Amino acid sequence: MSRQRVVIIGSGFGGLFAAKALKHADVDVTLIAKTTTHLFQPLLYQVATGVLSEGEIAPATREILRRQPNAQVLLGLVDDIDLTNRVVKWRFHNNYHETPYDSLIVAAGAGQSYFGNDHFATFAPGMKSIDDALELRARILKSFEIAEFTTDPVERARLLTFVVVGAGPTGVEMAGQIRELATSTLAHEFRSIDPTAARVVLIDGAPQVLPPFGESLGRKTEKVLERLGVEVLLDSIVTEVDEEGITVRAKDGTTQRIEAVCKVWAAGVKGSELGEVLAEQSGATLDRSNRVVVEPDLTLPGHPEVFVIGDMAAVDDVPGVAQGAIQEARYAAKTIKARLAHTDPPGPFAYRDKGSMATISKFSAVAKIGKIQLTGVVAWFAWLFLHLLYIAGFKQRITTLLSWALTFVTNGRSQRVVTNQQLVGRLALERLGSGVSGKLMQGEDVEPKQ
Amino acid sequence: MSRQRVVIIGSGFGGLFAAKALKHADVDVTLIAKTTTHLFQPLLYQVATGVLSEGEIAPATREILRRQPNAQVLLGLVDDIDLTNRVVKWRFHNNYHETPYDSLIVAAGAGQSYFGNDHFATFAPGMKSIDDALELRARILKSFEIAEFTTDPVERARLLTFVVVGAGPTGVEMAGQIRELATSTLAHEFRSIDPTAARVVLIDGAPQVLPPFGESLGRKTEKVLERLGVEVLLDSIVTEVDEEGITVRAKDGTTQRIEAVCKVWAAGVKGSELGEVLAEQSGATLDRSNRVVVEPDLTLPGHPEVFVIGDMAAVDDVPGVAQGAIQEARYAAKTIKARLAHTDPPGPFAYRDKGSMATISKFSAVAKIGKIQLTGVVAWFAWLFLHLLYIAGFKQRITTLLSWALTFVTNGRSQRVVTNQQLVGRLALERLGSGVSGKLMQGEDVEPKQ
Repeated sequence: MSRQRVVIIGSGFGGLFAAKALKHADVDVTLIAKTTTHLFQPLLYQVATGVLSEGEIAPATREILRRQPNAQVLLGLVDDIDLTNRVVKWRFHNNYHETPYDSLIVAAGAGQSYFGNDHFATFAPGMKSIDDALELRARILKSFEIAEFTTDPVERARLLTFVVVGAGPTGVEMAGQIRELATSTLAHEFRSIDPTAARVVLIDGAPQVLPPFGESLGRKTEKVLERLGVEVLLDSIVTEVDEEGITVRAKDGTTQRIEAVCKVWAAGVKGSELGEVLAEQSGATLDRSNRVVVEPDLTLPGHPEVFVIGDMAAVDDVPGVAQGAIQEARYAAKTIKARLAHTDPPGPFAYRDKGSMATISKFSAVAKIGKIQLTGVVAWFAWLFLHLLYIAGFKQRITTLLSWALTFVTNGRSQRVVTNQQLVGRLALERLGSGVSGKLMQGEDVEPKQ
Repeated sequence: MSRQRVVIIGSGFGGLFAAKALKHADVDVTLIAKTTTHLFQPLLYQVATGVLSEGEIAPATREILRRQPNAQVLLGLVDDIDLTNRVVKWRFHNNYHETPYDSLIVAAGAGQSYFGNDHFATFAPGMKSIDDALELRARILKSFEIAEFTTDPVERARLLTFVVVGAGPTGVEMAGQIRELATSTLAHEFRSIDPTAARVVLIDGAPQVLPPFGESLGRKTEKVLERLGVEVLLDSIVTEVDEEGITVRAKDGTTQRIEAVCKVWAAGVKGSELGEVLAEQSGATLDRSNRVVVEPDLTLPGHPEVFVIGDMAAVDDVPGVAQGAIQEARYAAKTIKARLAHTDPPGPFAYRDKGSMATISKFSAVAKIGKIQLTGVVAWFAWLFLHLLYIAGFKQRITTLLSWALTFVTNGRSQRVVTNQQLVGRLALERLGSGVSGKLMQGEDVEPKQ
């Protein structure tokens, strides 16, 4: 009898940790992902702001799994899953493939949600992939570059205003880093403009920043941000985004327009489109964020052989953080192994909260671990230590530590390259009418014109 | 009276070192370049093969010049130079600008030459910019990725054959690095293919590799390459390049076809198109490589206020290496300063040969310094030391040393990220019929469709 075939979709925290947890199982693992690397998403904002190189937060998935002979890694975009025949349909460009499975772990993650306003994406890229981060790096640095030779004061102010939508950890970290970039790294590099005067506006619909951290830490974070020079706009909803700015409506109904060339969207997530594929065939429910509502054992209703984990699964009390996906991955692997061994499967999945943290600026972070709240330097060192611990790859850990040390000591940033592709950017490509860039960002194929 | 205005075009070795040499001069320096960074071109092949991040070999030009208050850096593509009215015309996208000068230093470099076969570029990118290197990284790694799921043995062999055209230092280094990538880094990462069986073919029209190094070093280099597993094809001219391979004609007239998906062009240079602009207005001669034939003091005939330096200038006995551009830059700055001080300008430019070197593989390099020839480990350490010395930027020097140490110890490579943009690649973009990608690569503008 041939070995049980476990197919995993995705190379994020869910997919990678599921594969690793099956290392010693008597199964054949096939991991299919649309990128060649495992992305350490919590540090993406440091790639966007020039602190780290993309390689430091994204080692090759097949390198991580090289000493696991039962795992094969394939580069491809999954288009469809046939639940009846148990086949995953995927492709790379025009190479079409079908991979059969006995057990399937779907960990395809989530994209940015624009809450029904997908046209915002052109003007305010999200923060979900290396492509996103490198494009944002280009947009941020390009704004300063263009401002240097722009004489019209209105246009110049628009170039030196940066808007970050969403005050969760990613938004807070981006806003803080853009201000630090402007006030320390770039401070003495321009002759016509004063980079330290750059405005950074952080917007959220909630009444506080970092809502899941609670009111007290939210207030403290807000103070640190304001001391850094970040303008915090709460209780405010974004109603329009265009090339030149953003329109915001406050809770009291007043609207204001903020003129800004560079916008970042860090405001909401939307489960992978594969969730819809699964829901349609199984009758599973999707929640408001397009996430699949799974059974207590993380399987798809009516399909005990299919696990849905990570950001695309809706599981009570599990936040959309790395720890959620990792714990779910290990649980799914444990269940598969128990079934193979004909032992009792584990009880319903239970999330063990290991706390959450966000860094605001040099030497300043906030952390909430159970009832313990940390702020300032202590939280910052805790953040540093834990992030280094979780970065995959020995080389990455070493070089990241060095890059951080150099950045903190010199205030300089080592990774300020923007390619010409990125300098031209999504907007110019989309203007070509091909919509190429949007497709590229999703790892999709480009159809040749006839 | 206002200060003398010196405009410099280009941020390579010529442009950057000219700006630096004018640090204490009583002039206003404006450096206009189409990239935001100063590229250390000799290490570009390490970015293409995943050893270094792009930031490590390309610090921001304005960061390097931040403590030089008389220098302003502007991001833009120079379209035209009006020699009569002494004005440089440049733009960034649709922002058009004119910058007047009293002295002009043109150091716009060179692109890849396809010897009249520009259509080869689509299938065999050159090695001149960060965009090129990152695209080649994507092409190389993508070939292994696709081979892993390709079952047709002919197509698989085509994917695992890599052709490097041009056996100068860049070609030799690329060929060696691709073999090392295949035989050490990737060796245990695949399940369907054997990466160590990858063919690497190095082609040159000359009868030896590294022609400027002389016959003896050429033979030694060839032996090391062959021991590494690189097939060396000399006395051979490339007559056709297409998506699936390359056709080569040997000196004896026989032709052969090499089936290979991934091709790299490192075979010739062609001076910047600005050379044509200068020649047309001044009557200066262009040589076969489109380089401007300058006066003994590096000025344009009839225009003592215009210096042409670096890869776009044809100067007797000056090779197209960093040292040539650096020495010319310092000479031009010295001449400008002498004129300002009304002292005697320096005599005709004379190149001081500091030797040349190329690395072949781990612990193996060749160097020629005057009559001294070095090979093996000694040359390799000399190469290492000198390259570290010349990389601009303290942070870059430190992290490069660490990245090298990690690569040499672990055989792993830290920089294996390929963005979705790069994975889709130039070919797919060009198939769209827009020719976008080619334009992007040159830093040019994309015209929107009506």
